[in-house]
Amino acid sequence: MQLHQASWPEIETYLTRSKGVIVPIGSTEQHGPNGLLGTDALCPEIIAREAGDESGMLIAPTFNVGNAQHHLGFPGTITLRPSTMLAALQDWIDSLARHGFEQIYFLNGHGGNVPTINAAFSESYARWSLTGEPCPYKLKTRNWWELPGVMKTCREIFPVGDGSHATASEVAVTYYGYPDSVKNVEMTPKIAPEGDFSDADNYRKVFPDGRIGSDPAQATPDKGAVIVKAAKDALIAEARAFFGANA
Amino acid sequence: MQLHQASWPEIETYLTRSKGVIVPIGSTEQHGPNGLLGTDALCPEIIAREAGDESGMLIAPTFNVGNAQHHLGFPGTITLRPSTMLAALQDWIDSLARHGFEQIYFLNGHGGNVPTINAAFSESYARWSLTGEPCPYKLKTRNWWELPGVMKTCREIFPVGDGSHATASEVAVTYYGYPDSVKNVEMTPKIAPEGDFSDADNYRKVFPDGRIGSDPAQATPDKGAVIVKAAKDALIAEARAFFGANA
Amino acid sequence: MQLHQASWPEIETYLTRSKGVIVPIGSTEQHGPNGLLGTDALCPEIIAREAGDESGMLIAPTFNVGNAQHHLGFPGTITLRPSTMLAALQDWIDSLARHGFEQIYFLNGHGGNVPTINAAFSESYARWSLTGEPCPYKLKTRNWWELPGVMKTCREIFPVGDGSHATASEVAVTYYGYPDSVKNVEMTPKIAPEGDFSDADNYRKVFPDGRIGSDPAQATPDKGAVIVKAAKDALIAEARAFFGANA
Amino acid sequence: MQLHQASWPEIETYLTRSKGVIVPIGSTEQHGPNGLLGTDALCPEIIAREAGDESGMLIAPTFNVGNAQHHLGFPGTITLRPSTMLAALQDWIDSLARHGFEQIYFLNGHGGNVPTINAAFSESYARWSLTGEPCPYKLKTRNWWELPGVMKTCREIFPVGDGSHATASEVAVTYYGYPDSVKNVEMTPKIAPEGDFSDADNYRKVFPDGRIGSDPAQATPDKGAVIVKAAKDALIAEARAFFGANA
Amino acid sequence: MQLHQASWPEIETYLTRSKGVIVPIGSTEQHGPNGLLGTDALCPEIIAREAGDESGMLIAPTFNVGNAQHHLGFPGTITLRPSTMLAALQDWIDSLARHGFEQIYFLNGHGGNVPTINAAFSESYARWSLTGEPCPYKLKTRNWWELPGVMKTCREIFPVGDGSHATASEVAVTYYGYPDSVKNVEMTPKIAPEGDFSDADNYRKVFPDGRIGSDPAQATPDKGAVIVKAAKDALIAEARAFFGANA
Amino acid sequence: MQLHQASWPEIETYLTRSKGVIVPIGSTEQHGPNGLLGTDALCPEIIAREAGDESGMLIAPTFNVGNAQHHLGFPGTITLRPSTMLAALQDWIDSLARHGFEQIYFLNGHGGNVPTINAAFSESYARWSLTGEPCPYKLKTRNWWELPGVMKTCREIFPVGDGSHATASEVAVTYYGYPDSVKNVEMTPKIAPEGDFSDADNYRKVFPDGRIGSDPAQATPDKGAVIVKAAKDALIAEARAFFGANA
Repeated sequence: MQLHQASWPEIETYLTRSKGVIVPIGSTEQHGPNGLLGTDALCPEIIAREAGDESGMLIAPTFNVGNAQHHLGFPGTITLRPSTMLAALQDWIDSLARHGFEQIYFLNGHGGNVPTINAAFSESYARWSLTGEPCPYKLKTRNWWELPGVMKTCREIFPVGDGSHATASEVAVTYYGYPDSVKNVEMTPKIAPEGDFSDADNYRKVFPDGRIGSDPAQATPDKGAVIVKAAKDALIAEARAFFGANA
Repeated sequence: MQLHQASWPEIETYLTRSKGVIVPIGSTEQHGPNGLLGTDALCPEIIAREAGDESGMLIAPTFNVGNAQHHLGFPGTITLRPSTMLAALQDWIDSLARHGFEQIYFLNGHGGNVPTINAAFSESYARWSLTGEPCPYKLKTRNWWELPGVMKTCREIFPVGDGSHATASEVAVTYYGYPDSVKNVEMTPKIAPEGDFSDADNYRKVFPDGRIGSDPAQATPDKGAVIVKAAKDALIAEARAFFGANA
Repeated sequence: MQLHQASWPEIETYLTRSKGVIVPIGSTEQHGPNGLLGTDALCPEIIAREAGDESGMLIAPTFNVGNAQHHLGFPGTITLRPSTMLAALQDWIDSLARHGFEQIYFLNGHGGNVPTINAAFSESYARWSLTGEPCPYKLKTRNWWELPGVMKTCREIFPVGDGSHATASEVAVTYYGYPDSVKNVEMTPKIAPEGDFSDADNYRKVFPDGRIGSDPAQATPDKGAVIVKAAKDALIAEARAFFGANA
Repeated sequence: MQLHQASWPEIETYLTRSKGVIVPIGSTEQHGPNGLLGTDALCPEIIAREAGDESGMLIAPTFNVGNAQHHLGFPGTITLRPSTMLAALQDWIDSLARHGFEQIYFLNGHGGNVPTINAAFSESYARWSLTGEPCPYKLKTRNWWELPGVMKTCREIFPVGDGSHATASEVAVTYYGYPDSVKNVEMTPKIAPEGDFSDADNYRKVFPDGRIGSDPAQATPDKGAVIVKAAKDALIAEARAFFGANA
Repeated sequence: MQLHQASWPEIETYLTRSKGVIVPIGSTEQHGPNGLLGTDALCPEIIAREAGDESGMLIAPTFNVGNAQHHLGFPGTITLRPSTMLAALQDWIDSLARHGFEQIYFLNGHGGNVPTINAAFSESYARWSLTGEPCPYKLKTRNWWELPGVMKTCREIFPVGDGSHATASEVAVTYYGYPDSVKNVEMTPKIAPEGDFSDADNYRKVFPDGRIGSDPAQATPDKGAVIVKAAKDALIAEARAFFGANA
Repeated sequence: MQLHQASWPEIETYLTRSKGVIVPIGSTEQHGPNGLLGTDALCPEIIAREAGDESGMLIAPTFNVGNAQHHLGFPGTITLRPSTMLAALQDWIDSLARHGFEQIYFLNGHGGNVPTINAAFSESYARWSLTGEPCPYKLKTRNWWELPGVMKTCREIFPVGDGSHATASEVAVTYYGYPDSVKNVEMTPKIAPEGDFSDADNYRKVFPDGRIGSDPAQATPDKGAVIVKAAKDALIAEARAFFGANA
């Protein structure tokens, strides 16, 4: 069940049987020579959509721009400053809590979001902790590739060159979701270097085509389908456990 | 051309021929008994996507949650506070300007966003105005239903009961985009009342099913197709004029 | 009744018969070669003062600096950033609501304030909407020149060259209020050009003496008196309707 | 010279002979049974206006709502939170500095503003200090009653019961400026108690009619005239010294 | 009793006999050629520690970085912007109030903190004042050198050249606390000049070695011991009076 | 070398040979029945102080209050909201960068700080990334117990019941640093339960005495000495590598 494709009476009915909701959250940032700028938002969106359709769990719209400051050296990247993201997440959480949602699960597609998402959770809880009143909701986040079993699937499909940014796996997931967007680009070098970075200028100097450790030319829609299936199954199981008995 | 489905080298190439970008911006809020919660985000997204595909103009991801505080009395509504929205729009604008975009056009799907979008433009310009350096970009916003010719088309299709919230027109546009989400709901009364509102509690008391002045049961995918076509053509013309000679 | 010339026991008594208050709100910004920098604050202040004296309705002090970033190319202009103005309006509203005011009417003198005032209203309501408690006050804003009948009066007095910034009408209103400040300046061209603008640098390039579409050399105190009378009468009627039966 | 009654070309001319400006700053808050709510804004405004008229020095519009949280127990009081006031003062300062003003002198009418004004000065300087670039302007604040000689004049006129809030002196200054607003109220007790306070609830409990240590029934327009003259002369001398040789 | 060296059950017990807590607050900023960068934080920390050990009153950890923008021209200085300091103090106060502390006493070591501390108090009270609910705590600040009798002691020990920044007294207090950090530096000139300052660039130009009006070469651990004793005794007396009967 | 015990000329000299600085960062929060409220700030402070004394590397004052909202159910805990901590860290970083520090290393003592510290790094870098100018400094954080070899040492000393909050290791480190603060408390149960938590109310319900998974009664100053030595050696090595050749 997709929140943005539902009517409010449908959500009202949903709330009588579950207080849980899944929010895909990602980023709009460069993903190397053949990866989509939307990769990190599209991956959790694709996985969550299938999970919602299959299970009936509610999927919120995608929080599609996150913390991508280090990718601003590449055209098309859009970032929120972490302070802005803190405020925006607080508003999303407050809105959902207002309707009675008690378990809010953020399915994340971007490693660079993890600190700010967790800081936002503390910011949200802090308002309750400072007064002493119990907080009526629980917040949880999970990177889709860290769902049980998913990394293992990815490593089986891409034993070499999956990498850590613009990974073969994530590009494959988006190619599965958007097969018309498959881009054939030769990678030089075949596998990108690994390393550390700080700001955008530094990142582009160290990783001139944007990839870190990956050979995403291996990505195909079919491989993406396998990953999505693994992630979708794991997401349903984990969210169901989080949402509790009546989910 | 959809930014989130493009790679960064494709955007780099795009920037050699145009400095213009269209950002769909909307809201996630109740749209009456048969309207989708995503209506206000989906309408500009659908129209802009078709315009981008046809014209080659660049379409950014959709800013999908806006100022919807007055709809929070209805489950599923998500809002940003205007102060948060100001900060988020500043970050989107700064990111796009960083890459050299000089004309940023927000195609808006929600009347309640208009004040905050315009305040955000002033906030953005103010940083330049306070130093005296010329601002390198221009900002523009347009509600899709106010594109030249669109309102006339809507009134021809829905001479009665188009209304001002959960309008027959906007519901039709989303039904065109998401035909699987068509919902058959009887409206009582057939045409909703008109009136004013302030906060969420007040809104729900005055408009108990969420509609204002509309009979959206008239909406069909086919009618939506006509509206989308009119809006898409007008958008291409207006954006092209805004982007200038080389767009 | 002017709040800043009243004592607190007088306000306490006023609140037993009315919960309404009028707040003049404007801007401090260039108004062309012969217009006062305070024009946009002085106009609503002058009109409201007369309305308060005649009707007994309470007039708050004037919010005298607003959003004027686009005029910063001209010496004397002072602006708030919209984010600051949002916070300041929230504090004014919270203070007035603290005393039991239930209808707060902002008589506005500056078109550039409109988006931020409306965004501030949403910001204020949002705190209530996010908790679900009904908001105890209603907020309303009106540009003085859009009060019923006023524009018609202005057009009768200035059939040509009233314009849209540094208008003959608003300059006349301030000349009525401050006859010692009448400035005789020759306008070149007689009627200023019309057009669009973005930041301060752009504004000054397009409108080198600050006017838009106007010939304010036509302004006189006597003409201002006629406009003030029309606006004052319309304000009393509209505020009385807003404040309700016992106002 | 009053900024809000001047045109921008007049300010442009002024800046060729002086880079100094005086900003009256006050508060809108209860001032006891016979004092005006606007007292703390009106006093510096009245004094500065006369100083500007006599000397030709530029007087900005009045910053008329300040930090008055402790007076919110009395109807009519309006406050800014200090964080808002910090932001607003930053915008006023930035705007004036944008035009080339190099000495900005805040003539203050409210003791409760002093900490926040000084914090705002540090906030403003900090932006320069953190980069190392020299700040192009100097900021100064003075309470009008602490101008050289003024307190002595006040004590001569009111040897007993001048007090520390709703003082006989400040009420007299406003009665001089607004003789139609003189209010005859019997004070009980004749001289109000002295003491400390924290929030608004505490203040009203300790000082039930709002006064601290004063008998403002002694105030008359004539006494106010003497104080205004003393303050005006001292202000001209001090501002001239601050503005430097060419002021 | 030092909070950071206590366990939570010990604080729970403390709260049964007292609701008062002392927070040392200072700055990390240059203190001339022989003064420690931590002087303004270390002085109140040293004095409060001894007071807490002797009296059993609770001492919080030291708020060790304050408003030091004007010292940023000298290496090692660290500042908070006043707006940040406002937020941080609010969090400290809210945390302590959460546990039931009713009297929070800030022992301050830096004159430049005074405005922001007082603005923070108003910010904190304002939240209560705007709702009308009584605030459950009282806030107080005192500069350690203004504790009764301390300045007299300092002037007896340093009749000449105590000065106003990098004073002989404060350097002596830190030498008492950190005898291994005594630095023998010749002062040129022997007594530093007096004067005014604004931003960091201006400060360093006017006071090239950082001192104002002082000859801190006179400082010794023994002299510091005398000052600490005077300050400690006065602090115990004043805090006890503030905390009330059961402290 | 301790920054707060150095004079500014000493820091000026230091900067000629190194651009690196270590900032201990922690939290003030409950650490179970026998742990100090300051544990998380004291541990990195103790380790860094010894590293600085031995190696000559510069140690800044301790950032001693962090994100501890989940511990507010226990008296004595003090928290910053993450949004405040973001602003404060930005100011510390900007101040240090102002003096020419190019490598800023945060030695962290509190797991709950990790997200906000990393979000603050992104916030800091973002200002550079959004303009495209290269950032002149690098930021790094390390939890002291994750320094190479330290966890192994801890597990050897405490093979059972080291736990994850109020660990035997961290309590031992503080007992080494503050042997007078050793507290003999019987633990019930001997080893605390493991588990998850959200806000303060939830935390205290799940972990009634504050510990998670630990038996800190095993802590002694001698065991702490061993851990401090291991951590100090590892810190010197890691910081030296980060600071580069001339450190």
